[in-house]
Amino acid sequence: MTSAPYKKQPVTIACIQFEPVIGTPVANLAAMEDRIRQAHAVGAKLIVLPELADSGYVFNSSEELDSLAAPIPDGRSARRLCAIARELGVFIVSGLAEVAGGRFYNSAIFCGPDGYIGTYRKLHLWNRENLFFEKGDLGLPVFDTPLGRIGMAICYDGWFPETFRQLALKGAEIVCVPTNWVPMPGQNPETEAMANILHQAAAHSNGLYIACADRVGTERGQPFIGQSLIVDATGWPLAGPASRQDEAILYATITPTQLPEKRKLNEFNDIFGDRRADVYD
Amino acid sequence: MTSAPYKKQPVTIACIQFEPVIGTPVANLAAMEDRIRQAHAVGAKLIVLPELADSGYVFNSSEELDSLAAPIPDGRSARRLCAIARELGVFIVSGLAEVAGGRFYNSAIFCGPDGYIGTYRKLHLWNRENLFFEKGDLGLPVFDTPLGRIGMAICYDGWFPETFRQLALKGAEIVCVPTNWVPMPGQNPETEAMANILHQAAAHSNGLYIACADRVGTERGQPFIGQSLIVDATGWPLAGPASRQDEAILYATITPTQLPEKRKLNEFNDIFGDRRADVYD
Repeated sequence: MTSAPYKKQPVTIACIQFEPVIGTPVANLAAMEDRIRQAHAVGAKLIVLPELADSGYVFNSSEELDSLAAPIPDGRSARRLCAIARELGVFIVSGLAEVAGGRFYNSAIFCGPDGYIGTYRKLHLWNRENLFFEKGDLGLPVFDTPLGRIGMAICYDGWFPETFRQLALKGAEIVCVPTNWVPMPGQNPETEAMANILHQAAAHSNGLYIACADRVGTERGQPFIGQSLIVDATGWPLAGPASRQDEAILYATITPTQLPEKRKLNEFNDIFGDRRADVYD
Repeated sequence: MTSAPYKKQPVTIACIQFEPVIGTPVANLAAMEDRIRQAHAVGAKLIVLPELADSGYVFNSSEELDSLAAPIPDGRSARRLCAIARELGVFIVSGLAEVAGGRFYNSAIFCGPDGYIGTYRKLHLWNRENLFFEKGDLGLPVFDTPLGRIGMAICYDGWFPETFRQLALKGAEIVCVPTNWVPMPGQNPETEAMANILHQAAAHSNGLYIACADRVGTERGQPFIGQSLIVDATGWPLAGPASRQDEAILYATITPTQLPEKRKLNEFNDIFGDRRADVYD
């Protein structure tokens, strides 16, 4: 792998916010590839795409999902993303509709300069996803890469503080979040999205870089809120929130070697050392 | 207890933001009492005061703390707060400097119309507090009251997602947070405080009402950031953030009986039912 020097160096992350179109995986994959190449051209080494980026989100039936889902890493989208990662020497995380053993998963693929690295399957399914997908059965894996230790979470996973806590305790430094955020009840569309608040809090509490790539547009009546975000391990945004409705690519350059320092808040406090595991059940 | 009917009714919470003065417990207690009476006069039934409200925060020495700390519930501040709660028929949560068994704790007292209810001792000590206080040894108690099930957390406790998660899993509906928030590194004082972001996220993720009473002013060179906040169980502010430097009393009226509905996000999702305890370590 030619990427070994990255670890000690700043890493540029790109979050691609775009509008997949339900039922058009060939066109979606072409749109993804186009934007991955754009991000690579400006120096991105870790590129994050939305949830279910190749299939679209609002399925009418299991039959429709069956026509769109594919295996990871052997399906068409997975193979293509791995080939692009190899060609460009970049790391890619993208949501994909996965089929495995006759079951469907709302998954994220992780691939890099050496090809396929691993898969994450969404643990917490949102709303009608429960009609179509199985709950994730691969836990919360963390992959050690030349860029840093990378974990994944998908959309509603971020509503559970355990998601980021577990990833952090397992050593994650960067969490990539393919997402299809929808409006929350009571959310004033003029104020900061709750999704952003949750990920800022998670980044701050866990000393994690979090890179969220959301989709935009309205699909079969379901609006999505955009506002993709790259959050520093301090909890403050490094890039975004992006537009609520327009496509965008966010960029931020991070230095994972600074994490130990960011996690030590002062002479007495360390955000992991201060945990009271003796009290938490 | 005359307050049994409250549970089915809206409850008005008051968060008192004021400026304790280090080393003047008599004057601080008088200031607290004055503001508690103000809050009661406008209908508050649950009144929250800041961390270490009777002692001040920046101790020069253990000897100084020793001269300011008192037992709970037998010390002067604790007895006075319990007497006021009895007289007015209100519930009060206040930070107090506690001494017990020759040790000091950064504690919160909870008292109500029948007097003393319980004590919480801060689990996670911030910065130089570690020089003076013992870490809390009473866990995260939840008290069943006619207003609802009430827990407490103090300042830096809120940086640990486990704090609110544990309280919620133990049945808490309202968490009262006496606090002395200080500026976080990298915090732009013009933007929303990270403290507020953390408590909005915690309220949203756990379906909890959270009432934070901060102090203001600068004590021995240590500034405090005000911005007290009462958060709905949706995560959206009901009152505040209050001023960054001025005293204030925030009021919000909540209805804990609405919580089951707020915690059920749609036909398929329930924020506790969706937890993947099978995956979390």
